[in-house]
Amino acid sequence: MVKIILNQPQMGENIGAAARAMMNFNIGELRLVAPRDGWPNEKAIAMAAGAFDVMPPVQVFQTLDDAIADLHFTLATTARPRDMVKSVYTPSGAATEIHSRQSNGQDIGLIFGAERSGLSNEDISHMNGIITIPTNPDFPALNLGQSVLLMAYEISKHMSSSPNQTLHTGESPPAKIEETSKFITRLETELESSEQFFRSPELMPTMKRNIRNIFLRDDLTQQEVRTLHGILSALITKRG
Amino acid sequence: MVKIILNQPQMGENIGAAARAMMNFNIGELRLVAPRDGWPNEKAIAMAAGAFDVMPPVQVFQTLDDAIADLHFTLATTARPRDMVKSVYTPSGAATEIHSRQSNGQDIGLIFGAERSGLSNEDISHMNGIITIPTNPDFPALNLGQSVLLMAYEISKHMSSSPNQTLHTGESPPAKIEETSKFITRLETELESSEQFFRSPELMPTMKRNIRNIFLRDDLTQQEVRTLHGILSALITKRG
Repeated sequence: MVKIILNQPQMGENIGAAARAMMNFNIGELRLVAPRDGWPNEKAIAMAAGAFDVMPPVQVFQTLDDAIADLHFTLATTARPRDMVKSVYTPSGAATEIHSRQSNGQDIGLIFGAERSGLSNEDISHMNGIITIPTNPDFPALNLGQSVLLMAYEISKHMSSSPNQTLHTGESPPAKIEETSKFITRLETELESSEQFFRSPELMPTMKRNIRNIFLRDDLTQQEVRTLHGILSALITKRG
Repeated sequence: MVKIILNQPQMGENIGAAARAMMNFNIGELRLVAPRDGWPNEKAIAMAAGAFDVMPPVQVFQTLDDAIADLHFTLATTARPRDMVKSVYTPSGAATEIHSRQSNGQDIGLIFGAERSGLSNEDISHMNGIITIPTNPDFPALNLGQSVLLMAYEISKHMSSSPNQTLHTGESPPAKIEETSKFITRLETELESSEQFFRSPELMPTMKRNIRNIFLRDDLTQQEVRTLHGILSALITKRG
């Protein structure tokens, strides 16, 4: 299933418009991360034209990491490509990717940033890829509801067709985000304690993002995550 | 060029949202038919986020026929297919069609109905075809700004590619709507005066719509319209 995840949304109206757009194209699951005005929200309900009555209950999370932990694949929508090594999808390309992963039983998250600030580079480094909606460079700003509408439309368009590609992962199911994330966190902790890797404290956040980008791009299976843990353990033991 | 034509729009906010969506995808020409609150409209300007400053001046018409007279091809967006013999396009199919016609130098109109009432069957019978956005049957209603956004997005997506098809019309350019329309009106007048055709006054509007649908579907060249006039003249003279 596809979950639409709004990270720190500010205006209830935009949450409502997103919900309405989702139901227009039958994408039913909405997650909110730390909505500014709490939840439920009267303005959201007024704007949704009844969408909340026909979709599963909205789930609210305190952090973006919590909101994506049980998913297998996540894409962040951004107005511009970032200076990061990440797969960048068009809306249509993303819909194709989502469709093949869904056929394979994966749960997918589409993450939309706050109205003004969007998603930080740190947020984005926790995602598997980026979607960039190709707008007019001289007039690029879509609002939150409109971005959700375009993505819901593209996903709905692709749902009716056969996927172009399916993933073969043998006997091992794909890793959930939290499994891959736990490995990355463990790796970071080990690197911090080694004192040989993060030599400059100023560069540490960037280096961590780069590491995260390497492993999240990899589309790991659960077995592969276990293998990586094993490699890490072996290396530590050797060092010790 | 593509002209976005809003027929009898009610709320200024929706005109503004449409303009903003148009500029997001670089579709620059907006026509209004009898806007309820006149033009210019403060609420439209507030909602447009500056779009009116960077697009050509909005053109205002008193009737839908006036607004499409100088165009070559028109498509009406409707929430549902009508009981009429008309080509029905998906948004993507319409964008492909528009793209090939544009490459051939044609001017195209996309017509959007009023917020509540949409377009009448009479309005639609004056168009060459219909676009139906495939929404969730249990939650179908898109607002005006969102419909314009999706169409502008699809058109912009297709603009960057080569057309799949170009029209070959030999030496004769494609007829403008007003040229085809004049022939249809003349034909109707002749049929009315014959007293053999429109036997039931109640059925006359439907029969006229059916006739209009036949000729508008035909994609006539200017030469062909002249030929049809010639045929009609010949038939009348023979009758007389």
